[in-house]
Amino acid sequence: MNNIESTVVSSRIRLARNLADYPFPNRLSGVKQAKEIIRIVSAAASRLREFKLYYMDEITESVALSLRDDHLISAELAANRKYGAALIDEGDFEDFSSDRVADKISIMINEEDHLREQYIARGLNLTTAYLKISEMDDALSRSLRFAYDAQLGYLTACPTNLGTGLRASVMLFLPGLTRMNKMSKLIREISRLGHTVRGVYGEGSAAEGYMYQISNEVTLGVTEDYILSEVQKAVLEIVNLESQARRALVSEDYIGVKDGCRRAYGILTNCEKISYSEFLKLISDVKLGAALGFVQIEDVARIDELISSVRPANISLLSDEEMSALQRDILRAEKCRAALNESAK
Amino acid sequence: MNNIESTVVSSRIRLARNLADYPFPNRLSGVKQAKEIIRIVSAAASRLREFKLYYMDEITESVALSLRDDHLISAELAANRKYGAALIDEGDFEDFSSDRVADKISIMINEEDHLREQYIARGLNLTTAYLKISEMDDALSRSLRFAYDAQLGYLTACPTNLGTGLRASVMLFLPGLTRMNKMSKLIREISRLGHTVRGVYGEGSAAEGYMYQISNEVTLGVTEDYILSEVQKAVLEIVNLESQARRALVSEDYIGVKDGCRRAYGILTNCEKISYSEFLKLISDVKLGAALGFVQIEDVARIDELISSVRPANISLLSDEEMSALQRDILRAEKCRAALNESAK
Repeated sequence: MNNIESTVVSSRIRLARNLADYPFPNRLSGVKQAKEIIRIVSAAASRLREFKLYYMDEITESVALSLRDDHLISAELAANRKYGAALIDEGDFEDFSSDRVADKISIMINEEDHLREQYIARGLNLTTAYLKISEMDDALSRSLRFAYDAQLGYLTACPTNLGTGLRASVMLFLPGLTRMNKMSKLIREISRLGHTVRGVYGEGSAAEGYMYQISNEVTLGVTEDYILSEVQKAVLEIVNLESQARRALVSEDYIGVKDGCRRAYGILTNCEKISYSEFLKLISDVKLGAALGFVQIEDVARIDELISSVRPANISLLSDEEMSALQRDILRAEKCRAALNESAK
Repeated sequence: MNNIESTVVSSRIRLARNLADYPFPNRLSGVKQAKEIIRIVSAAASRLREFKLYYMDEITESVALSLRDDHLISAELAANRKYGAALIDEGDFEDFSSDRVADKISIMINEEDHLREQYIARGLNLTTAYLKISEMDDALSRSLRFAYDAQLGYLTACPTNLGTGLRASVMLFLPGLTRMNKMSKLIREISRLGHTVRGVYGEGSAAEGYMYQISNEVTLGVTEDYILSEVQKAVLEIVNLESQARRALVSEDYIGVKDGCRRAYGILTNCEKISYSEFLKLISDVKLGAALGFVQIEDVARIDELISSVRPANISLLSDEEMSALQRDILRAEKCRAALNESAK
């Protein structure tokens, strides 16, 4: 596992698009017009691939939260479910072998913009993700008329998305920088470069799971290629800093760090119940241990898949009946033991 | 593993004897007289078996503490090392197969009495232990003249040992009664029967490791057989109460108890460093787990041997050089992982 693989979890490209013939979602005349847009967009998209359509006002809270936690829809769409919908395709993509964790593609409808097209690829794959989503966007633009201005580019509800409508985000696992207390400084420096870094679980300093997301701020007056290459450059720099921080952490307290990683592995392979919060803390130490060679894990991607699958919302989906917190904790511990024993070399 | 095996750790018989021709140890004229007694006793004993002789004023503090922690000598002898000595035979006894944790025999010289002969047997084996120590005592009495009064029996420095000079003690592992908060009541009840129960690690309530020792109070005016059968009866009653308490504990919180035992096992099989106090807490939960069938351990006796071998004093004996607390914690973790992986079914 090289530094990039042990630091970059996934890459995401999102395009904001609007239909020229309809007012922005926050100005729609009502549910009827919203449903019309959902029908038009989903008809166009379904000609391209086998999307599953979720009407936000028809799905349960658990399903909405599960889609949100998997980053397939935004927190905003999950919270405001009257007008929105989501088209989801979670993989078995022909160009990936079946034992690989699949990439994911989704289109949110009537979130802030009529369309938010998004492609999530594993690892550092911004270019691939961009090519994939552009391909779909081009195909959609042949049947949908997007709001586009020759000078401004794509028109969006919020001016911060104007122009390319492109947001490139990379999910990073930064245990070294977090534990060496280097994150606040890094976040300040990255924001000076025109990017945003934020904790994925809880904003700010107490980023559980050592997970952060970096994304571009500027969408207007620059080309798509420029955005991608700037984010990529910043990511590579962070990967480098993270690798230094990990070395410093280990040289500061080799036994202490190894002990922490090994104990986390020991608990997760043996526990009978575990809360998501404790799980997240421990699995992050297991991932750190895998990166440092203290824990033998064959396929770290499977660990990231596990993290997603044992979230409260996803655990809840495993049973038709309402589960108690204890029942979820027991089920989580079961899945965790199974996944880690399977991942062991 | 039946209830007795999973509750009774070891049985100990101790005989207090004094030489008729010398004043009691606290009245000796000086070091010269003390050494004379050591010579006489050790000459007599060495004709019977291959004892190793430790002069208390010649051994290091670590060795003294190690003997004390293994219950081969008393805390008093370890603390007051001017006049005393100890004869130790730690096994390879012909009547035990080599893969069994050996029984132990020792004679303290010039502790409270001139001789304190002691036999420690694994499990509930008071009768065997008594037969073994009597056999040695009879042999010793042929070459040493013991202080004996036809009416009072064996004369001892302290009247509480007068008569038989016999103390029968049984070491008990009582996680169920401890965790169900039944120990203080039990201790009161047992003392009414003329026995003493005390925590092995720290007197009173906070008995670390769930370990307790029961022993007879009365030595005078009763026969040896009576003492043995009374202690045995009390032990069997406690085993029964412990077994009920374990069932109650598990039925109260099956998942919680199993989770605790499994996590303890996970940590002990993976940690890179561990203090004795944390180790003791966790290994006790592993032993409880083994008794309840939650943890697969083939030979619980090996676990008891591990508990002894990783005590601070015993760990210190592993190296000629002075070790730091961290070095001891690392060595302890290593031994612990090795022993548990070996004990796993």
